[in-house]
Parts: sequence; C-alpha cells; structure tokens
Amino acid sequence: MSLVVQKFGGSSVADAESVKRVAKRIASYRKAGHDVVVVVSAMGDQTDDLIDLAQQVSPVPPPRELDMLLTAGERISMAVLAMAIANLGESAQSFTGSQAGVITDESHGKARIIDVTPGRIQSALDDGHVAIVAGFQGVSQTTKNITTLGRGGSDTTAVALAAALNADVCEIYSDVDGVFTADPRIVPTARKIHKIGYEEMMEMAASGAKILMLRCVEYARRSGVPIHVRSSFSTHTGTWVTDGEIPAPFRTDTTEEEDTVEQPIISGVAHDRSEAKLTIVGVPDVPGKAAEIFSLIAEQEINIDMIVQNISTRDPGRTDISFTLPMADGAKAIESLEARKDTIEFDHLRYDDQIGKLSVVGDGMRSNPGVTAALFRALSAENVNIDLISTSEIRISVVTRAEDLDRAVQAAHGAYGLDSEDNEAVVYGGTGR
Amino acid sequence: MSLVVQKFGGSSVADAESVKRVAKRIASYRKAGHDVVVVVSAMGDQTDDLIDLAQQVSPVPPPRELDMLLTAGERISMAVLAMAIANLGESAQSFTGSQAGVITDESHGKARIIDVTPGRIQSALDDGHVAIVAGFQGVSQTTKNITTLGRGGSDTTAVALAAALNADVCEIYSDVDGVFTADPRIVPTARKIHKIGYEEMMEMAASGAKILMLRCVEYARRSGVPIHVRSSFSTHTGTWVTDGEIPAPFRTDTTEEEDTVEQPIISGVAHDRSEAKLTIVGVPDVPGKAAEIFSLIAEQEINIDMIVQNISTRDPGRTDISFTLPMADGAKAIESLEARKDTIEFDHLRYDDQIGKLSVVGDGMRSNPGVTAALFRALSAENVNIDLISTSEIRISVVTRAEDLDRAVQAAHGAYGLDSEDNEAVVYGGTGR
Repeated sequence: MSLVVQKFGGSSVADAESVKRVAKRIASYRKAGHDVVVVVSAMGDQTDDLIDLAQQVSPVPPPRELDMLLTAGERISMAVLAMAIANLGESAQSFTGSQAGVITDESHGKARIIDVTPGRIQSALDDGHVAIVAGFQGVSQTTKNITTLGRGGSDTTAVALAAALNADVCEIYSDVDGVFTADPRIVPTARKIHKIGYEEMMEMAASGAKILMLRCVEYARRSGVPIHVRSSFSTHTGTWVTDGEIPAPFRTDTTEEEDTVEQPIISGVAHDRSEAKLTIVGVPDVPGKAAEIFSLIAEQEINIDMIVQNISTRDPGRTDISFTLPMADGAKAIESLEARKDTIEFDHLRYDDQIGKLSVVGDGMRSNPGVTAALFRALSAENVNIDLISTSEIRISVVTRAEDLDRAVQAAHGAYGLDSEDNEAVVYGGTGR
Repeated sequence: MSLVVQKFGGSSVADAESVKRVAKRIASYRKAGHDVVVVVSAMGDQTDDLIDLAQQVSPVPPPRELDMLLTAGERISMAVLAMAIANLGESAQSFTGSQAGVITDESHGKARIIDVTPGRIQSALDDGHVAIVAGFQGVSQTTKNITTLGRGGSDTTAVALAAALNADVCEIYSDVDGVFTADPRIVPTARKIHKIGYEEMMEMAASGAKILMLRCVEYARRSGVPIHVRSSFSTHTGTWVTDGEIPAPFRTDTTEEEDTVEQPIISGVAHDRSEAKLTIVGVPDVPGKAAEIFSLIAEQEINIDMIVQNISTRDPGRTDISFTLPMADGAKAIESLEARKDTIEFDHLRYDDQIGKLSVVGDGMRSNPGVTAALFRALSAENVNIDLISTSEIRISVVTRAEDLDRAVQAAHGAYGLDSEDNEAVVYGGTGR
C-alpha cells in the first residue's frame, strides 16, 4: 500500500462540479488501494473575494486578522471536498492546518513551516479515512495564532506533509499538464518535461517558472519526496520532480519508455517579466560602499537577484552599481536609497522596469562549457541585446529588453534542441560530451 | 471597570457597512472604559449559502464536515469585525470557539457546551484587546472535532463566556428592541418589557418567543449573568433579563424611572405556530401503554410538549392519547408509531398541523389564581375554542385552531392590561393579593 499526498489548487476546486470531479479522482486512488492525504486551496476566487471584503472595512487590515479571515477559504473547500468524497462512499475527514500539525513561525502572511506533527492525520489514515488538509495555513509555535504561508503556500503544505508522513509521492494538481521546456504561450513547440531533478526545478522556479514555488521544491529536495506535477483535468502523466527513480507503483508504460530517453543537457528555458533594474550611478569606488548599499536593501526585505558593478563611464574614481529586484519593490528601494543619498554619496538613480529575464537551466551544463556560447550565438542571431548576465553551475540568466524577451526565449529553446519536432538539433558545439 | 460581553447576530453584521456600525458601538464601549468581549454570528445569509454549497455536492453531508464548513461563517465575520475595530484605533483579536475554550460534547450540529476555559480571552483582555469570539461553535472534548451548537447557539456562546469570565452583563443585540409583551406584528399595542426574571424568560422562550433560546436563558440563570436584550440599530435600553438589580454602570434615567413601576402579574403573551398535534386513537387502557409510546417517541429524539389522555369516546376500554410536537418531527413520529402499530395495538393516528399555541407567562401567577379564569373568559368572549391546556407555576398554555391564534393572542394581551394605552385594565378579578 502506498501513501499518496495530493494537492489541488483553487482552479481545480472552483465550484461544486469541479469539487465532485476531484472527489472522483481521490476515490479512484482509494479503490486502487492507496492511502490518500489531500491538501486543498480555497475555491476559485474565494481568497480574492475575502481580501475585497477586508478592504471594505479597513485599508490596512491587521495581519493576524487577515490570516484568520483568509483561512476561512480552505476551511470551506476542504469540508465541501470531504462531503463530496463521502457522497461517493469513501470516508473523509477534513483538518485545518493547525489540526494537521502544520507549525510555523509567527510571520503573518508569509509564515515558514518549522515543524509538522501530523498525529491526527496519521490516526485518520489508520482509521481508513481520506484526510483532507487545508493548504496555505498553519499555527504559530509561539503565539498559537493562525498563520498563512503566502504565495504558493498550499504546495509547500503538501510537500511538508508528504515528508512528515513519509509519503511515496506528492502529486501537485493544477490546470496545466506539467512543467514545460518553456512557456507554451511563447514557444508553441515547447514539450512537457518527463522528469527533472530538484536542483534544476529550483533554478526553474527561481527563474520565473510559476508552476512550483521555490520553497516547495527546496522542501522536497531536503526530504527526498518525489513530486508529480500534473493536471486535474486529465489522467496523463505530468512531470516528475525527483533525483531518483519514479516510484514503482506509479510507473506506466509511458514512463518506462520515456525513462529510456537520454536526459537532455538543457532541461528548460524560463523567463520572468516581474523584475526591474535599478542602477546607482556614481558611487565612490571605495571599499564598503557595496556592503552599505546592499545592507540597506536587505533591511527593506527586498530580494535582489543579479548585481553588476562597472567603472563609471563618466568618472574613473566612481562606479555604477546595477541590480535587479522585484518590480513590486521598486518604489521602496528608490525611497530608501534616496533617503541615504548623502551618506552613500551617489550621483543619481536610474530605474528601468522595461526589462525581461531569460534563464536556461540544465544539469548537463556542469560538463558542457559550450552551453553559454550557444546561448549568446542564438540571441545574437536574433539581434537580442544582453544587458546583464549571471550564472550558477546549472543556469545561465540574461537580462534583455522587455520587448525582445519572447524572441529570446524562442531562440534559446530552438538552439538547445528542445522544440518537440526537432529533438536532435544540437547547436552548442561545446567541448563537452 | 466593567466587563461587557456583547453578542451580534447575523442581521447586525450583514455587510461591510453593518460591520462598521457595530465596530463603532464596540469602540464607544472601550472609550467609556469597559472591557469588551464580542460574540458574533456569521454575516447575513452566509450560513444558508454554505448549506446550499454543501447540498450541491452531497444530499446528506456528514455532520462532522457540515460543522467544519459552517464554522467558516463566523471565522469570516469575526476577522472582518476585528479589522473594522482596529480601523477605529482600538486593538482587537478574533478567536474561534476552540481557541476561546468553548468545550462541547461531540453531537455535531447540536452540541452542548460542557465547559468554557477562556484563558486566551482573559489574556487578550489583560493585554488591552477587544476579544472577538466566533459564536455557535466549539470543540468536542473527546474527539477534538469542531462542533456547532445548533439554533440560537451564538446567544449561548455569549452567555457561557459571560459566566466563565464573570462579566457584568451579557448584551444580546439583534434587529428588535427587546422582549415584548406579545409579538408586535400581531398585537400592535404590545410594549417592550423593561425587566423580566430568568424563569419567566425561560417560559417565554419555551413557549415560542424567538428572541432568546431556552438553553441560553437556562445558562444565564444558573450563572446569574444579567442579559440585556437590545437592538443594534439604536442605543435605546432594551429588556433586562435578571432576577436581581440592573447593574449600576448600566443604569440610566429611564431605567430608574421604569424600575419604580410595579411589576405586572403577567409579563407577556407568547405564541407558537410550529407545533402539530398527534392523536393516537384507541389505545388499550392498560398500564404501561403510555410509557411504551413515549419511550418510542423519545428514541426518535422528538421533544413533545403537551400530553392529554382521554377515555375513548367510541370504546370505553380504550383511550385516546394526544400530544403536541414540532411540526418538523411529524413525519418521523408517524412513521415510528405506525411501525409499532401491532405491539401498541392502537386503532389509528390523527395528525393535525393546523393548530396554534398561546402561552401567558407571569411570575405573579403564583399568587393569583384568577389568572387562568381571566384567560378563559377572554378567549370565550372572542369565541376561541380551547383544545388542550397545560400549566406550570408561572405559565398557562392553550392550543387553539391555527386561524384563531392571532385573535386569541390579542384578547389575552388586552385581558391582562398589557396594551400600552391601557396599562391599568385588570379583568382577572381573582382572589390574589
């Protein structure tokens, strides 16, 4: 008997009909002999509706109360889903994050899971129930207040529970078929990835692939839980995120076949339009200035991504520091820097939110130095100018103009032979294997 | 400093505007120096909407899950109310029934409070917060599952918390001004009752006065908490339910004046259209038959009210047993009796849901034997036929035809001098004081 943790997002349980469809899938897993724990998000637009309601009584609702309010969303979806499962003859019990033992720190709205003590869930399973757990929420260890995990939190709930319960797989259901080699809306020839390693998936997530949040994949890697990303609207195999084998009970003829295909050097091309570039022009080129600047930014809890420092073109004794940051934090960053203009002694700021970021991710990059050159060649052939560059062992990211981003993604996808019709194209003529 | 527990029903928090109005009232109590605990119901029709949603996925939802679902309603209203209070500059924290220490038995949908351990509420008060508590819900002592208290449960939550916290008053807000001497829709001259004892209020509640549930008044009597029933749409004094004095901090010029008015012998006239009469015709007149019948009815968890046994008009060796019961339980009662027709050996059943019940309640009745005669005279003058009669020390109830009920209530109200224009009319010429 296997233990399966399944997570269904808001679009999978948008209304009563969707809930019934999800219930049928869960019941089929029970009938196949699996133990099932289900993590569920709020139905459809419920969370947005609750935020609207909050705004009607308070422009800046207290975070503790906003979390209390929003957690009503999953309470509704989980109870309704349990009813729908019971209606199919399987027994189900729903549990809040707190009841399920999801223990967090006390940061309302963006709490981190610090422990999972799923005693009640294990008992429910032992008693033959399907356990339905509210995603996105937990309880603070110190204050005992209800917390929410922030964006993508339900995925993290699912992986954390799967880890704590030693589940065989954590299935993440959404309205797309899996992780693709690129966003199919930009690259129509993009293919579904059959299997991808945790580290690659983390780089993809950090680079803008929205299907899984970084934190959730980090959690899975630490615990070694295999994730299966798939669609709640079909029964097709989706994308497996694991460094190991696909667990035996979940192998199909298709997976066997796809497993024999050699892993490509590049797994996928991610992109991100949500960042902006801030340049601090004319900073004195003396030790400690960068530390001063980035300490200030860190105090504002702004996550920065790429950093480039250049000798100032106008004054050899000064330097220009550029970095990328979430567009949403732009105003905050500018404000805090301007407030310290006299102590940092910079000349002025330049803010640019018309940028795009493209990232090529692949484990094969470790042993294929030619991968970078191939990217530059492909972008150059498309006349795409590169502004900033950063790399990790298994990722190359470049910043382009926003209007060039789609062409850049298409060019990169083609260059690495990821197009579905053109699997064999290899243009990265490196020295690697 | 006084501690006030305030309960607001669904109509008082039907939308964002109502919530803001309630928040203002609560803030004014804080500014006047009171500690405040607020018990709140779900907003407007939220509970009905959630029941509709449940019906869409399951005709008979599991009670545990239905309770989990319905408790989302108060979770929303309490968080939104806390936000609205915070927006007025007062600090507020919301608590679920479970967090507030409302411990119940495990009967989903109609749980009874068996203990209240309001440690977190007391801490919140000590820290200077308004504590908002979800009404209508608790947590089972044995299963740790979330329970709901059933109809009028929020009132009981409020009184139970007031008792556990040793509050000075429990204010029950709704959309009416207080408890009236009769339903003003039937008796336009009905007056608001200024003060009424617990026992009288219990008889009123048990007799169909919908403003307070019986269980809530029982709880208040046991603990001695004064209840103040009033409207959330005005600041007028409502009706005090207490056997003692109105607590000093809440006395007004009006209350002083009204306190000097002599207490009337009759407090009010209640009515109830929700009952039916079931007659078991031709039961053998031997010992044990009544016990057999009413054990069977009790097994179905049907509360019966009046019982009358008469010698059968058709067969002197047999008897007819009539009793009243909630109309909603009629089908269940008939079904269970018919199934045992052969062992009980009755002839047939007669079911009548075209009845009405009128009750006259007053503590002064204990020493005024003429009260009953006055009622019969008044009904007879209106040509109202009396079918069944039952009495307690402070109540007389009669069953009439449904179509006669309004006239009967009007006649009784006038007969005891309760009409607002005619306070002195005394027609009960008894032998009393």
